[in-house]
Amino acid sequence: MISATESDATDKPDSDSKNIDFPNSRRVYVKGTVHKNVRVAMREVDLAPTHHTDGRIENNEPIAIYDTSGPWGDPDFNGKVEEGLPALKKDWILNRDDVEAYEGRNVKPMDNGYLSDEHATQHNENKAPENQLIEYPGLRRQPLRASAGHPVTQMWYARQGIITPEMEYIAIRENLGRKKAYQASQDPAAARNELNYQHKGESFGAAIPEYITPEFVRDEVARGRAIIPSNINHPEVEPMIIGRNFLVKINANIGNSAVTSTIGEEVEKMRWATRWGTDNVMDLSTGKNIHATREWIIRNSPVPIGTVPIYQALEKVNGRVEDLNWEVFRDTLIEQAEQGVDYFTIHAAVLLRYVPMTATRATGIVSRGGSIMAKWCLYHHRESFLYEHWDDICDIMAAYDISFSIGDGLRPGSVADANDEAQFAELKTQGELTTRAWEKSVQVMNEGPGHVPMHMIQENMDKQIEWCHEAPFYTLGPLTTDIAPGYDHITSGIGAAMIGWYGCAMLCYVTPKEHLGLPDRDDVRTGVVTYKLAAHAADLAKGHPGAQHRDNALSKARFEFRWDDQFNLGLDPSRARSYHDETLPSEGAKAAHFCSMCGPTFCSMKISEEVRQYAKENGMTDAKAIEEGMQEKAKEFQESGAKV
Amino acid sequence: MISATESDATDKPDSDSKNIDFPNSRRVYVKGTVHKNVRVAMREVDLAPTHHTDGRIENNEPIAIYDTSGPWGDPDFNGKVEEGLPALKKDWILNRDDVEAYEGRNVKPMDNGYLSDEHATQHNENKAPENQLIEYPGLRRQPLRASAGHPVTQMWYARQGIITPEMEYIAIRENLGRKKAYQASQDPAAARNELNYQHKGESFGAAIPEYITPEFVRDEVARGRAIIPSNINHPEVEPMIIGRNFLVKINANIGNSAVTSTIGEEVEKMRWATRWGTDNVMDLSTGKNIHATREWIIRNSPVPIGTVPIYQALEKVNGRVEDLNWEVFRDTLIEQAEQGVDYFTIHAAVLLRYVPMTATRATGIVSRGGSIMAKWCLYHHRESFLYEHWDDICDIMAAYDISFSIGDGLRPGSVADANDEAQFAELKTQGELTTRAWEKSVQVMNEGPGHVPMHMIQENMDKQIEWCHEAPFYTLGPLTTDIAPGYDHITSGIGAAMIGWYGCAMLCYVTPKEHLGLPDRDDVRTGVVTYKLAAHAADLAKGHPGAQHRDNALSKARFEFRWDDQFNLGLDPSRARSYHDETLPSEGAKAAHFCSMCGPTFCSMKISEEVRQYAKENGMTDAKAIEEGMQEKAKEFQESGAKV
Repeated sequence: MISATESDATDKPDSDSKNIDFPNSRRVYVKGTVHKNVRVAMREVDLAPTHHTDGRIENNEPIAIYDTSGPWGDPDFNGKVEEGLPALKKDWILNRDDVEAYEGRNVKPMDNGYLSDEHATQHNENKAPENQLIEYPGLRRQPLRASAGHPVTQMWYARQGIITPEMEYIAIRENLGRKKAYQASQDPAAARNELNYQHKGESFGAAIPEYITPEFVRDEVARGRAIIPSNINHPEVEPMIIGRNFLVKINANIGNSAVTSTIGEEVEKMRWATRWGTDNVMDLSTGKNIHATREWIIRNSPVPIGTVPIYQALEKVNGRVEDLNWEVFRDTLIEQAEQGVDYFTIHAAVLLRYVPMTATRATGIVSRGGSIMAKWCLYHHRESFLYEHWDDICDIMAAYDISFSIGDGLRPGSVADANDEAQFAELKTQGELTTRAWEKSVQVMNEGPGHVPMHMIQENMDKQIEWCHEAPFYTLGPLTTDIAPGYDHITSGIGAAMIGWYGCAMLCYVTPKEHLGLPDRDDVRTGVVTYKLAAHAADLAKGHPGAQHRDNALSKARFEFRWDDQFNLGLDPSRARSYHDETLPSEGAKAAHFCSMCGPTFCSMKISEEVRQYAKENGMTDAKAIEEGMQEKAKEFQESGAKV
Repeated sequence: MISATESDATDKPDSDSKNIDFPNSRRVYVKGTVHKNVRVAMREVDLAPTHHTDGRIENNEPIAIYDTSGPWGDPDFNGKVEEGLPALKKDWILNRDDVEAYEGRNVKPMDNGYLSDEHATQHNENKAPENQLIEYPGLRRQPLRASAGHPVTQMWYARQGIITPEMEYIAIRENLGRKKAYQASQDPAAARNELNYQHKGESFGAAIPEYITPEFVRDEVARGRAIIPSNINHPEVEPMIIGRNFLVKINANIGNSAVTSTIGEEVEKMRWATRWGTDNVMDLSTGKNIHATREWIIRNSPVPIGTVPIYQALEKVNGRVEDLNWEVFRDTLIEQAEQGVDYFTIHAAVLLRYVPMTATRATGIVSRGGSIMAKWCLYHHRESFLYEHWDDICDIMAAYDISFSIGDGLRPGSVADANDEAQFAELKTQGELTTRAWEKSVQVMNEGPGHVPMHMIQENMDKQIEWCHEAPFYTLGPLTTDIAPGYDHITSGIGAAMIGWYGCAMLCYVTPKEHLGLPDRDDVRTGVVTYKLAAHAADLAKGHPGAQHRDNALSKARFEFRWDDQFNLGLDPSRARSYHDETLPSEGAKAAHFCSMCGPTFCSMKISEEVRQYAKENGMTDAKAIEEGMQEKAKEFQESGAKV
């Protein structure tokens, strides 16, 4: 709960206990070269040295980890949620000299679901404090918009050949646990050292450098194959990129609903989700206080925020789908653009003629936005106003650099409906809308399913690449079976990892509560970590340079019984540690050269280390050597007392 | 804990509360046709009717579900763990008239890790009751062995053209939620109705009937492409099959270690794991009381039990690897054969010349059995005695119908080591050993990795099929990344689902405690359910006839807001229900036509149902109809008050 008067509850919520979950970690910053004012935040994990059996001590270099927690993850940062995060990108935006501050739209009672100020007051009087409207107390900046007669999108800059500070930030960030890599790549020879992503034996269509360079980032954004969600009114964001030639990203959905949860909980969920590694957050709030909730979230979010504006538009017409219209939708876009939403999910590809295709489905239309638009189209027997006003929408997006996440309103809601006519009809229209947005230099990604059995996943990716001209794909899972409610983070984690490998750029997380209820903190943590591991598995499989660095460091720690390092290099060190301690809680056990699974006699790691030492000492490192000299050496070995 | 004097604690452990976890379920039995004494146990879930908006009531047929819980899952069964399960297969075995009962080997103190009876007594005096040796109190049958001069394996019978009761049991069981299907397939015309498994566009190499027939089961077993683990001394087992043209199976590992856990806990874990759906259990106990623990487990297990005999052999030589020899290993095989172990993991393909290949690995040898044999080979500079005595081992297996699970002692322990020289060298030798076992009509499956990134998984499956001549593959995961300790049920569930799709026949589960500690009850449940969903995702993807039946029933329930049916058709109804109830606990909410995620206004399911009804009532079920008649109908719709 957030309240200006109860600062203890808000200044130090759980997310501020920074080092409990990530021990032996330090916050570091890597500076830019093209842009000297770029400082990229990373988390470095310090490791213990290896004590070899021959007495030699080997130093293990710290491992740098991609960090999405923003200033909240910096122990030296003492900000408050009431004040919001520093405006990291403010100077970058202003220095381009192509935006203007302006008065902006007035916030209306309707924006929070009230008929009038009196209605809001009355509503609050009847509510428990945690359900009351709490306006964001921090400063309200004047909004910015394009003023130089051209789009202010990263795509537009990229097409002009400009490397923005955002692009350099991303280049450094994408080089993963190899923070020195970026500096090395400043050497022009190294920058030309190209490496093809391997994907099922084929190239991904892009020759990418061994290290990600700012030039590569620019070229991918110009091509439309990657996006940098970056509303100029959300200067708090640390730049990140979504595209299949980069690290696979994940998104966490939060948001209150008419039934449950409060503003404070949602802000805390956002901070909590970024702490565990989500790259983006979508605020899917409905019901009362939508505007206020969003303001709290955006001002405190170091990651891009996405929304589905039709949800708020529907609240503004009191939930009557048939009363939706372009004017109220446009008003909502401007409202959210000025607040700083980085990408909008817009279900403009649900066309009137596609709606009957869903009538014989097992599970109809399961997207909220899709079902709203289907109902609207049927009621009015008109083509979707979102589709008809696409160019107008693009103009708004271009003036604030808001990215499209073109919705998949007809995605399948069960494996029975996967890859059907309705789904693919909409996907083709998503492709058409993508081209039209690109003509106005607006950044675009496309949303995808949903529920798809494994053997039908790749067809989704291949068709999206073809029909949507390589714009990034952003899928929900997909769930690979419908029979495991309560475990859908896993049924979908399987599909997410696979489609990530096939080329999907961002994976929308699914929590254990999917289909059952709203996720709590623990569900958010489980959902985020599950999707981080799925995304990483995809990075390994598609051969992202450097992805395996962290696996190797963790495996080395495991093999050498550096228990703390094994925990700390994992995605969730505190959970790993607590699982270990359930069986062997003493600190001594964490220094032991065996563990609870096998005990000392049966420890294969221990025996394996003995084998390795023996082989090394006796020159038996290849099959030839063993055949030539084994008999003699085995004899010596036995005579020496057989201490392998 | 199990104790003969504290019967309350043992007669009604948690696993006996049969209907708490699976509400609205009934135990049913389907009778055989070829063999009238075959009765196949299944669980049927009763469903609520659908109330259509037009007032029509649609009956929803009960869904039959493959049930691994054995008599423990039958509410009418009142057995006690001290007495064990009924000997279901006893008459089937004796009626073949090719086995003899004999005196059998005497149980020795050494079998439980003691030097003498005095040592055992002394040990127990110093221990807490739950760590004491508790001999199984039930009757000890005389062991059976082959007596007619031929193997008594299911493979031998199959090769003679015999359809055993075990095979008919399996045919009925494999037809999943379509219990009438088997009877239908008795019609010869239907039995010839063949369907090819589709696997990435190719056939799986077997034309399988639309329904699994006893003949098909026989032919696959004769071919070596499937096995029926079925030691004649474990007559309590309900027959099941492992092969890639059948449902993908899972295995759960249990077992105490020198460090922790007791006999009673292990028996309870076995019952618990079969309750949640494991098809097999491996008892990996080490330390004291191995023999006694195994006896308790086998006498109470309705599923096949596997072991790694080298573990016990090593205990018999006091943990000194170098003291292992053929005699002590042979003695251990006989001991376990007489107890009724259904399959043995034997690491006979770890050859002397392969050991140096592991010296430069990131994580050496991570298999316990593999590291033991590597150490033995190095110490003695001799070829593995398991390899050299393979034919002797086969003769023992043939006399009891124990199946091989040829171990993969050199499997990779990290993604860094995946698909390396050592791993594939061993796999080739597994293939050689497979052929030799088949020559003696011994059933065989091959174990596989381990840690393998997604893009390298299929190579494992393809090489195993080629080199091991289509013998069933049985893999541990594989884990697709190393960076998520605490979540390795998921990192491995991804790999397991994929390799199951590619043709792997059985998936060895991984729990959240993998690499960290011993799993407790909740970990076993999570591990089993995760692997059930992975196996089912694979069944869907490879096109097992009828696999999608349950998904469709659950999705229909979900779409129609039959909340209880949605829970009850899932793999873990009680967890799904409790997740739902955290947000909306009232019973009324489970009848509601919306849920906590979206609330009533935003419910896409509700809107979708309205769209469907409207489309149906107005003949708008295809795109042509909508184009022709929409304008008029939309007008009527508006005039009628727009109540979609």
